[in-house]
Amino acid sequence: MSTEPRLEDVVAALPLVDHHVHGASAVDLDRPAFETLVTESDRPIPPFMTQFDSQIGFAIRRWCAPVLGLSAHASPEDYLARRAELGAAEVNRRLLRGSGIGRFLVETGYRGEDVLGVAGMAEASDRPAAEIVRIERVLEEVAATGVSAAELPGRFREELAARCAGAVGLKSIVAYRYGFAFDPEPPSEREVVDAAGRWLATAPENGPRVEDPVLLRFGLWTGVAQGLPLQLHAGYGDPDVELHLCDPLLLTRWLKLVEPHGVDVLLLHCYPYHRNAGYLAQVFPHVYFDVGLAVNYTGSRSGAVIAESLELAPFAKILFSSDAWGPAELHYLGAHLFRRGLCEALRSWVDAGQWTEPDAIRVATMIGATNASRVYGLEPAE
Amino acid sequence: MSTEPRLEDVVAALPLVDHHVHGASAVDLDRPAFETLVTESDRPIPPFMTQFDSQIGFAIRRWCAPVLGLSAHASPEDYLARRAELGAAEVNRRLLRGSGIGRFLVETGYRGEDVLGVAGMAEASDRPAAEIVRIERVLEEVAATGVSAAELPGRFREELAARCAGAVGLKSIVAYRYGFAFDPEPPSEREVVDAAGRWLATAPENGPRVEDPVLLRFGLWTGVAQGLPLQLHAGYGDPDVELHLCDPLLLTRWLKLVEPHGVDVLLLHCYPYHRNAGYLAQVFPHVYFDVGLAVNYTGSRSGAVIAESLELAPFAKILFSSDAWGPAELHYLGAHLFRRGLCEALRSWVDAGQWTEPDAIRVATMIGATNASRVYGLEPAE
Amino acid sequence: MSTEPRLEDVVAALPLVDHHVHGASAVDLDRPAFETLVTESDRPIPPFMTQFDSQIGFAIRRWCAPVLGLSAHASPEDYLARRAELGAAEVNRRLLRGSGIGRFLVETGYRGEDVLGVAGMAEASDRPAAEIVRIERVLEEVAATGVSAAELPGRFREELAARCAGAVGLKSIVAYRYGFAFDPEPPSEREVVDAAGRWLATAPENGPRVEDPVLLRFGLWTGVAQGLPLQLHAGYGDPDVELHLCDPLLLTRWLKLVEPHGVDVLLLHCYPYHRNAGYLAQVFPHVYFDVGLAVNYTGSRSGAVIAESLELAPFAKILFSSDAWGPAELHYLGAHLFRRGLCEALRSWVDAGQWTEPDAIRVATMIGATNASRVYGLEPAE
Repeated sequence: MSTEPRLEDVVAALPLVDHHVHGASAVDLDRPAFETLVTESDRPIPPFMTQFDSQIGFAIRRWCAPVLGLSAHASPEDYLARRAELGAAEVNRRLLRGSGIGRFLVETGYRGEDVLGVAGMAEASDRPAAEIVRIERVLEEVAATGVSAAELPGRFREELAARCAGAVGLKSIVAYRYGFAFDPEPPSEREVVDAAGRWLATAPENGPRVEDPVLLRFGLWTGVAQGLPLQLHAGYGDPDVELHLCDPLLLTRWLKLVEPHGVDVLLLHCYPYHRNAGYLAQVFPHVYFDVGLAVNYTGSRSGAVIAESLELAPFAKILFSSDAWGPAELHYLGAHLFRRGLCEALRSWVDAGQWTEPDAIRVATMIGATNASRVYGLEPAE
Repeated sequence: MSTEPRLEDVVAALPLVDHHVHGASAVDLDRPAFETLVTESDRPIPPFMTQFDSQIGFAIRRWCAPVLGLSAHASPEDYLARRAELGAAEVNRRLLRGSGIGRFLVETGYRGEDVLGVAGMAEASDRPAAEIVRIERVLEEVAATGVSAAELPGRFREELAARCAGAVGLKSIVAYRYGFAFDPEPPSEREVVDAAGRWLATAPENGPRVEDPVLLRFGLWTGVAQGLPLQLHAGYGDPDVELHLCDPLLLTRWLKLVEPHGVDVLLLHCYPYHRNAGYLAQVFPHVYFDVGLAVNYTGSRSGAVIAESLELAPFAKILFSSDAWGPAELHYLGAHLFRRGLCEALRSWVDAGQWTEPDAIRVATMIGATNASRVYGLEPAE
Repeated sequence: MSTEPRLEDVVAALPLVDHHVHGASAVDLDRPAFETLVTESDRPIPPFMTQFDSQIGFAIRRWCAPVLGLSAHASPEDYLARRAELGAAEVNRRLLRGSGIGRFLVETGYRGEDVLGVAGMAEASDRPAAEIVRIERVLEEVAATGVSAAELPGRFREELAARCAGAVGLKSIVAYRYGFAFDPEPPSEREVVDAAGRWLATAPENGPRVEDPVLLRFGLWTGVAQGLPLQLHAGYGDPDVELHLCDPLLLTRWLKLVEPHGVDVLLLHCYPYHRNAGYLAQVFPHVYFDVGLAVNYTGSRSGAVIAESLELAPFAKILFSSDAWGPAELHYLGAHLFRRGLCEALRSWVDAGQWTEPDAIRVATMIGATNASRVYGLEPAE
């Protein structure tokens, strides 16, 4: 009998590097809270429907219920009752550890007070975690300190550099705040100070929100100067985005300007523009992408989305992320559906004689773990 | 033996609500007429080809031929000869009743003189039918009455309200007349009167065609004020559209402005932007969509298109339509291919253990019928 | 036993018309040279990866290795060693003849000095070859002769007409030089002379590169005036394109203006906008398309891409091309993957009872050969 490893076994045991993820909810969630956290909509769930009646809802009932000790396909009521019974800490522990994710790169810039931080994630999962710094959050924090417009550029540069000392990467949400149809050149110091003046004059002190394209470009280019891998939200997200303005192809000129700086750019999610992202990852040596968020939300269709992500890009340029935020079901499903979908695609090519099984295993390992380890310079986990 | 209902049996018997459809041809159609009605092209069929050599042509030969008493895959010649032999009334009767559509919401604004009206559709199908009013048609009718520019806004409001009294919904074809890259705000009364002045000064009396974006926006917002569900053509259609300007994502800002008005917006067809529509349906509580027209025209590929429509949107937000106009083959295939494609997708998930069969049946029933009944406030058919 | 021909057998033996292809490399290629020619990137392959780890790399190892006498899935090292051992001429002979391509329409305008010409391709393949003239190349050649701005329009018209005498079609790369968001109307003679003046004043004498939209439009419309089929690069290509500006839908208004001229327009590649191209091919009688380049670069996914190309377009409007340039692996795979992918899609429909096998054979023959023969007026090969 052959003792050659099987693709599915290797992938099931692969310690994935989740290169873009947020913290798990630290608190118990009632039904309205839970349902609003398993959709990208920020509106209340309308009374005529339940978010459980969706691909992700069905995936939770199918795949997460057994992790909580229920039968597959448990009803939403049974599921949430069991979740409450176990409590947030135990739910997190089971789902995070059950995910088999080997390392978490945690983006801490979004409502960090509501979810576990880097240390909390490491503890709940018993796996290493490192930080990804959200550029715009740092800029907003600096603005909230009472800095003057003239001081803002320097103070932000200092603060971002300081934050980067403890981080493995940066993240920009320019997609949410303006979209990608921005002037790709860095703004001049004069333009930045002027824009900062307008912003600080109008921003509420307790919550300045950066939306000015000059300031966003300043943030991005300051991010490039750090030399760390730079993640950009692209494509699908909450209703703050205008999705057609988040097509990563709109970044083409900016990507060309970034290229000589030697910084890797990681396009996150990208759905429904993941084929476009695959093109960019083929033609530009410093461009990478994943289909993170979309895997969770397309559920039974995630295999099809993953297959579409395996077209133009060299296999060294595709990564795994869950982009989970809040319910640890999102962390679990991000990993579980990724493993399933990736195996489904690769298995079909192996079975058709187009790929060898060792090649399939090698590619799955690259996409699931080693590409991210290389890009972020991660040391092997002990 | 199990007596649990099977998905395929339930879907085959499901009285679909065709929430956007037009009348069937009332007259016999010769070959050139028939061929030009089974394409969205408005050009004559070129002499080097036949429209029968297309996905929809093959679907007609495969699925409609048996309904007319022929073998599956009958030749175009045999098919059209049989069609002529039976006559338009009998063809309509067989195909409309054979479709199993349980209710028709008939949009009457396009060449209504050439096809059956609401009553005619009810009679030919022996099923209830109700009316969807085309906003731009009403505006053009009011303009043709010799109204002055100053009177036009008021007269249109009155006329549209009167027409809505007997209707279940409204439809806009702003996609055809301007595209979606319009100013999302309602125009002022002054702007409308000015635009009406220009329009009425130049419009031929016997056929004013509204293409002015101010007037189109006026029509849309007057439609919103009626409180009825509002359908918008989106994506694929005849060569009057510039397809890239009909991406429903271009409506994002307008949808946000409509949201507080409490009106449901139904994006029709959407191909090839149906994933974009699914995103909008996930994040906005008042947004719904279907892949109507595309199901017919993609034939053997319609299962793939339907599967793609089942990604981001909650299942309460997806509807069925045929968008048939003219040959009753389009009504029949719209229903038949939808049933096949939906079952194909759901069956694959049930067989893979990802969904339960009762869940699949419930979702198919929502998409095929009950979502539309809820949105349009339809009473159960007797 | 049935003697009815099988789809797979007919397609395997079909002498494809490769309606858009370039010459095979005339010289031996070392590993860096080979790898940079099997990607659309024009950057050096980064040291952390190999282009063999990609869909096309795996396809080369799977399908081309046996043609060179190696086992399927040979390692890159073994493959390149064997390639060097055989030498460029023998590699070309094996792969070009093994492709089963029956006729090559060779676009000669890109780095023609580095690859076989029309006669060289005919000789290496032992099949007929004809020429496709690249419009922009001719314009640049005329500019390099020292012509004045005032003379340029007339001289270009003469030269293009002369070149067309020996060609079967024209090709434009306006997609690469400006994108499709250009004014669709022909420029005036005055505008052309003015633009030519600016261009000639700044162009380096040894390599003027036409990027001015007025001159590009002048080239396009002069191309239309030749009456030959006109190919346009659309969608996917090297990093010179801004891919979102190469969506063929942006040509809609230009296509409407071309329509009365009686010239066929052939949209090449189109990925990831091939569904958009299918729409244009349905609604406009003079529009055709293929998914050439994308078939090679999506490898194991090419069947899915081909299936997506079989949606809206009538079957008389879809063509085959490889768009190969350089390594003859691209010519071989273009044909091989096309045959496989097309059979895969059609077989699934035949097996499901949706198509008959004779219809599938007929459609495959149209797409693979007879559509191109009709459009380009090709005489049957002896």
